[in-house]
Amino acid sequence: MMVSTITPSRIQSPVLRRIADAFFREVSPFLLHLGMFVPTIIGQCTVEQKAYWLPRALRMEIIGTYAQTELGHGTFIRGLETTATYDENTEEFVLHSPTLSSYKWWAGGMGKTVNHSIVVAQLYTKGECHGPHTFIVQIRDLDSHMPLKGLKVGDIGPRLGFQTADNGFLGFDNYRIPRENLMMKNAEVLKDGTYVKIARHGKLTYGTMVFVRVMLVSEMAFNLAKAVTIAVRYSAVRRQSQPKPNEPEPQVLEYLTQQHKLFISISTAHAFQLTSAWLWTTFTAVLADMRDGNTDTLPELHALSSCLKAICTSDCSAFIEQCRFACGGHGYMISSNLPSLYGFTTATRTYEGDYTVLLLQTARFLVKMWEQVEQGNAVTPTLEYLTRHQNKEIWDESPEGIIRAFESVSAGKVKGCVASLRKHMKDGLDYEDAWQLTTVQLVAAAEAHCRAILSRVYWTETVRVSAGSSSEVRAVLHQLAALYLLYWATERTGDLLRFTTISESDLVNLQERYEELLRKIRPNAVGLVDAFDLRDETLRSTLGSYDGRVYERLMEEALKSPLNQEPVNQSFHKYIKPLMNKL
Amino acid sequence: MMVSTITPSRIQSPVLRRIADAFFREVSPFLLHLGMFVPTIIGQCTVEQKAYWLPRALRMEIIGTYAQTELGHGTFIRGLETTATYDENTEEFVLHSPTLSSYKWWAGGMGKTVNHSIVVAQLYTKGECHGPHTFIVQIRDLDSHMPLKGLKVGDIGPRLGFQTADNGFLGFDNYRIPRENLMMKNAEVLKDGTYVKIARHGKLTYGTMVFVRVMLVSEMAFNLAKAVTIAVRYSAVRRQSQPKPNEPEPQVLEYLTQQHKLFISISTAHAFQLTSAWLWTTFTAVLADMRDGNTDTLPELHALSSCLKAICTSDCSAFIEQCRFACGGHGYMISSNLPSLYGFTTATRTYEGDYTVLLLQTARFLVKMWEQVEQGNAVTPTLEYLTRHQNKEIWDESPEGIIRAFESVSAGKVKGCVASLRKHMKDGLDYEDAWQLTTVQLVAAAEAHCRAILSRVYWTETVRVSAGSSSEVRAVLHQLAALYLLYWATERTGDLLRFTTISESDLVNLQERYEELLRKIRPNAVGLVDAFDLRDETLRSTLGSYDGRVYERLMEEALKSPLNQEPVNQSFHKYIKPLMNKL
Repeated sequence: MMVSTITPSRIQSPVLRRIADAFFREVSPFLLHLGMFVPTIIGQCTVEQKAYWLPRALRMEIIGTYAQTELGHGTFIRGLETTATYDENTEEFVLHSPTLSSYKWWAGGMGKTVNHSIVVAQLYTKGECHGPHTFIVQIRDLDSHMPLKGLKVGDIGPRLGFQTADNGFLGFDNYRIPRENLMMKNAEVLKDGTYVKIARHGKLTYGTMVFVRVMLVSEMAFNLAKAVTIAVRYSAVRRQSQPKPNEPEPQVLEYLTQQHKLFISISTAHAFQLTSAWLWTTFTAVLADMRDGNTDTLPELHALSSCLKAICTSDCSAFIEQCRFACGGHGYMISSNLPSLYGFTTATRTYEGDYTVLLLQTARFLVKMWEQVEQGNAVTPTLEYLTRHQNKEIWDESPEGIIRAFESVSAGKVKGCVASLRKHMKDGLDYEDAWQLTTVQLVAAAEAHCRAILSRVYWTETVRVSAGSSSEVRAVLHQLAALYLLYWATERTGDLLRFTTISESDLVNLQERYEELLRKIRPNAVGLVDAFDLRDETLRSTLGSYDGRVYERLMEEALKSPLNQEPVNQSFHKYIKPLMNKL
Repeated sequence: MMVSTITPSRIQSPVLRRIADAFFREVSPFLLHLGMFVPTIIGQCTVEQKAYWLPRALRMEIIGTYAQTELGHGTFIRGLETTATYDENTEEFVLHSPTLSSYKWWAGGMGKTVNHSIVVAQLYTKGECHGPHTFIVQIRDLDSHMPLKGLKVGDIGPRLGFQTADNGFLGFDNYRIPRENLMMKNAEVLKDGTYVKIARHGKLTYGTMVFVRVMLVSEMAFNLAKAVTIAVRYSAVRRQSQPKPNEPEPQVLEYLTQQHKLFISISTAHAFQLTSAWLWTTFTAVLADMRDGNTDTLPELHALSSCLKAICTSDCSAFIEQCRFACGGHGYMISSNLPSLYGFTTATRTYEGDYTVLLLQTARFLVKMWEQVEQGNAVTPTLEYLTRHQNKEIWDESPEGIIRAFESVSAGKVKGCVASLRKHMKDGLDYEDAWQLTTVQLVAAAEAHCRAILSRVYWTETVRVSAGSSSEVRAVLHQLAALYLLYWATERTGDLLRFTTISESDLVNLQERYEELLRKIRPNAVGLVDAFDLRDETLRSTLGSYDGRVYERLMEEALKSPLNQEPVNQSFHKYIKPLMNKL
């Protein structure tokens, strides 16, 4: 089983990740070597191929990356234009980039670092196209590092983040590689050009994808924990205004609006970490099923991991930005580390599956499950709630009641989508056109489903993992999880009013409970971010260090600016002085 | 009247602004010279002082900035720590920074460019503090540009945006300036140290502030127009997926989800530009009133300009980011110009009045007006809607009906805030504590008020300015304004359900109308962004150029990367080669 050998602890344990984070300020150009090149060799090579490539890669005799996305195509993999045409005379594949838009684009480390790459290209044998396949391709000479003849390779230029990740482009001019460089675990091309598909669950390749998504959800928890640690600590140092004469300026953390901006991020970091662990457990259960030849649970896992990837990356970047806003002007300083955290995190919203595209994939599953329920068939566990859908869920303000309300919202939205689809089809559209015209609502339905899942998992897992804690610790963990439920309930009043019996006075009550909870969490806020246990070397923030020396650090960092290394810069003599008195 | 001499056309006409934008890729370090230094001389100097300083500044014999914010204080101006103590023996002011947190921080151009600055400091005469006052201070030698003795000045280090704006810090070590350098239009210190307050409406200084906010709202329209031009043009070039076999990949602009992400930004750019012009008209009317000695209309203007500044800067940055997301991976390239547009715009959410603080200022006014209405008194025109508030506004789906619904939402939220304030006071809290505990709701109320204003102004002004257009043009402009109303109605279903009689079927209908409007606008989308008439030199985007050569430009820009100037970088020999084969 390909994926069972790649566990998070093998590839990138949380502890190692944190140590790496403390040492390197930026992303490594070798990231995809261990992150994609090696795992793909493990996953897509035959035993013989693995024996050849894996030791070389692990010893870093060869350094690789993964080139799939092209200038003109990312999401739609069938649309990739790079071709790999088999030449039976020489027993080689001829890689070619027929257009500018077919150039590989974005591969990390491709720019100047790697000497090999996995390349995804349309495989042609005997004039027939077999769709995208993966190849191992040498890019540069191992000794001189010069790009090999027939390739155009370089850096794609500056980006919002990942500046040090060395993202590159790669184009082929009838570039030849040996037949053996097709990764042949799932499909083989014989010497005479015969294409042989190996009988295997095509679905197995979902493995790497789901694995990456589990990691991303955990990564989001980690980055959000960093941002909120910085913002909460700064808010405990920063003082502002004088609401009452003759009293000292309060710490900005005392302001309810500040608590409203920040505490949800503490909760969310917990929610994402617990959900990532839960998703991993679900994933390993699905793998076990698959080893037994049962792939029934795979679609549910795919739908889950898709929407969780979309919502967790999106929420995380939005909340990191909210943490930055909460730090006012100083959050705008690079030395706060908040801009870099945002720049790094916002990319995750796009790569490994775009936000909108992934939610629509989940939505396909939701609509399918709705139809199952209509036909009286059983559905998968995470969608069991569809079977108890009624027009208006009875409102109940307990945690379980709020979670059920979110599930009702999701069910109601799925139902609305199905109604819209059928209306458009009644108007004469085919299913795909009706689908297109419903996509705005389908995205909303998938989001609602994901929030229901996150709420249920976070609450259930909190109750479970805190059961053995002291009553004090348990109380605080329950408060955080309750805050998460109340935050999203007050954010989604329209949904609750549409799909539950919640009343105006219930809403007022909800708001009051939310505000009360903010005040209850306030005394523990600094303790809660300290509990994330992130060292200063990991946070790398003038605003968020443990000792609270905010202003001293800001000044120390400012003095390091290259502009400050001489009292008068050459720009004065060159530009400013000639300008003075000339107008 | 100080401000009447500074009209937008005098200081920075839209046309000049666009030309400047085409020439300079980044913010100028001279920005605050014309933007703040000169206007403050005009506004706060006596006639004699003006005669001395203004010609020198306009000829750029001296180059200045404006230093108010300190490391430890931004929003709370009374908390500024820098002192200016009058010494009657030498007839000088002694400027001093008593703490690290009192260092001036952020002043644009201070880092290495200016030789003068306006400095805000606490004025002390005869042992008494008179609060913050403005001084003109020389910072560097006019000839050598060396910082003067007694000052510590430099660049504050890298920032998320404004990298070229040369933001700096400034500290004083008992630094002496002549008595005449106090800007004495509103307050004088006599030779013997007697402090004389000039009788004048303190409120007049609101002028510059409101002026800057009018400009900011217009600036937001301009930047959002840039972002959406880039994203719409790219979406017309980019193709993705194959919803139907054997048909070509559609332009991504065909996807409803893409239209949903982008078209609201076209509408919003129109809304902000019309609102900025309307705010300017309101402003000049208030100025005229004030010249007649009537300051009654000033609080309304202040409340308006506060919430408009907050919401327009916040919406603009959020929508620019949405435009970037809509461009997928390529939106992450610096060469798309979208990251820089965001970096520049997101700063406006903080400077010149933080988002939350400004909304709370508007909220103070809203609560005051609500109390006036309760007492049967008349209220200002933009809050007249409070007088017709009822528990549930009758839902009416016409534009006027939707606008009235938004006004009802605002009124309902203000009412809720007043109820919360009174509840807390009944529980024994004083007004200020009750206020603090209601701030989350107060921010929401001010936001709702602002959205009601934006909706009404945008719709009314659209009807007015399009009255003379052809019926075709008028129809499209009305569509855009209707889209704005429907977008925010579908975004605020919770509010509509709480404060109007809108039903579930009305909501379904609203969503259908919104989606229909997206499809109607689609054929004109490219024409509408072309109509913003932004030249390629202004857009500076690989994705957004008029000729649509997206992939060619991306590659051309990539090839300019310094990393691509040699086939093998030194980093290979220095770091990578020694690493290979060593594991």
